[in-house]
Amino acid sequence: MGDYLITPKLLPGERIDQLYSQEIKIIQSPQVFSFSLDAVLLANFAKPPLKQKGELVDLCAGNGAVGLFMAPRVKGSIAMVEIQPRLADMARRSVALNQLENKITVYQQDLATIYNQIRKDSVETVVCNPPYFADLPDSKKNPNQYLAIARHEIATSLETVVEVTSGLLKTTGKAFFVYRPDRLLDLTSIMANHRLAVKRLQFVYPKPGRDANIVLVEAIKDGQMTGLKVLPSLMTYDESGDYSEPVKKMLYGD
Amino acid sequence: MGDYLITPKLLPGERIDQLYSQEIKIIQSPQVFSFSLDAVLLANFAKPPLKQKGELVDLCAGNGAVGLFMAPRVKGSIAMVEIQPRLADMARRSVALNQLENKITVYQQDLATIYNQIRKDSVETVVCNPPYFADLPDSKKNPNQYLAIARHEIATSLETVVEVTSGLLKTTGKAFFVYRPDRLLDLTSIMANHRLAVKRLQFVYPKPGRDANIVLVEAIKDGQMTGLKVLPSLMTYDESGDYSEPVKKMLYGD
Repeated sequence: MGDYLITPKLLPGERIDQLYSQEIKIIQSPQVFSFSLDAVLLANFAKPPLKQKGELVDLCAGNGAVGLFMAPRVKGSIAMVEIQPRLADMARRSVALNQLENKITVYQQDLATIYNQIRKDSVETVVCNPPYFADLPDSKKNPNQYLAIARHEIATSLETVVEVTSGLLKTTGKAFFVYRPDRLLDLTSIMANHRLAVKRLQFVYPKPGRDANIVLVEAIKDGQMTGLKVLPSLMTYDESGDYSEPVKKMLYGD
Repeated sequence: MGDYLITPKLLPGERIDQLYSQEIKIIQSPQVFSFSLDAVLLANFAKPPLKQKGELVDLCAGNGAVGLFMAPRVKGSIAMVEIQPRLADMARRSVALNQLENKITVYQQDLATIYNQIRKDSVETVVCNPPYFADLPDSKKNPNQYLAIARHEIATSLETVVEVTSGLLKTTGKAFFVYRPDRLLDLTSIMANHRLAVKRLQFVYPKPGRDANIVLVEAIKDGQMTGLKVLPSLMTYDESGDYSEPVKKMLYGD
């Protein structure tokens, strides 16, 4: 049983990166898609399904980073949904590379049609790193179409992502999102309109003295709309420009 | 001109405290009402009116702490609105004690009727430290009726406070609130329903490792609903249990 059994086929420009804290390998490509700190933060913030057989769904999965990083903590199955064939293919090959085919299924399709594959009101946990930008400004088109679709609401909208998240979740099921603070109140009001009560927020600051640039959001389906908790904030870099201790631990482990 | 000219009449149980950073004296009473850190934080967070003659209104003014603390930075006039006669009287005597009668007017009345005194759509800045609790649970009544009314939505409601705030403000006028994180999303959604776009949030944590217990909110009337900024967080106490440096500076000055 040699390593050659799980040597993946890499396409031109691709490489294999490792998240050392989780011993997970992931296929990346600077020209197509690489996971960012957002994925690492979301995977750490999200709680895996409580139930032994509870399913976790990763919407807007990209190259599968969030679901792969969470896989060691998830006892049930994981479904990844990604509309872009090139990215879904990377995710599938990463799943194989980590020998997680029995746990993880990758659906390459528009999340709006996912009820054909995953029953409504059946899922315990949804994680999502949605496109952040409302639309693609003509003046500043991202020349990389893969990234443009991942980052801008071209193939889907925030409203649709939240609606599908709520549709998939069972009552008291939980949603975990990573998003940008400047649109946080859009997200929370859309969530409220779709039966998702926001319960926890955590703000991430790039470094001391700067405004937050990332927010992590936990919501519960059909939960009470009161009792929000705002967790201790996280700093990405410390004063000296190194990763802060909590972020180092997420990336490299103890 | 001796100090005797401004010696106020103190009622039983009252004392004069000083906010050294602003050289403001304020009449307090542990049995009736004393300003809290919330008032100091709000006065520091709020920006005074930009215009030379711009008016600042302090709604739910209590003993007048927020308006008094801001007075040195406000060039125009200040109106304080407080429904409780006993608290409004303390505020009036503190105004006299600081010889600010020409700048500050105290209205003892329900804020819902304030348009009789202050014209709609005329105010540049509103500051408010509203009651935090939705209602007064029977099981845990505050034996101090003054504090009960100041802290619980007995004499007014958050909806009314926000509606009046918006009604008083002129277009692009600004509102500054101090509130509790657990009801933040109530506040932001009520603000959105009343033409107030939330632009800045600042979370205050009691000490390292704890959830936030205070949030400061800046909103603009008829502003765009996008572009929220989440400022660097504040810590009340440091690891050793002393006030943190920024809070010390607010309380005691440089």
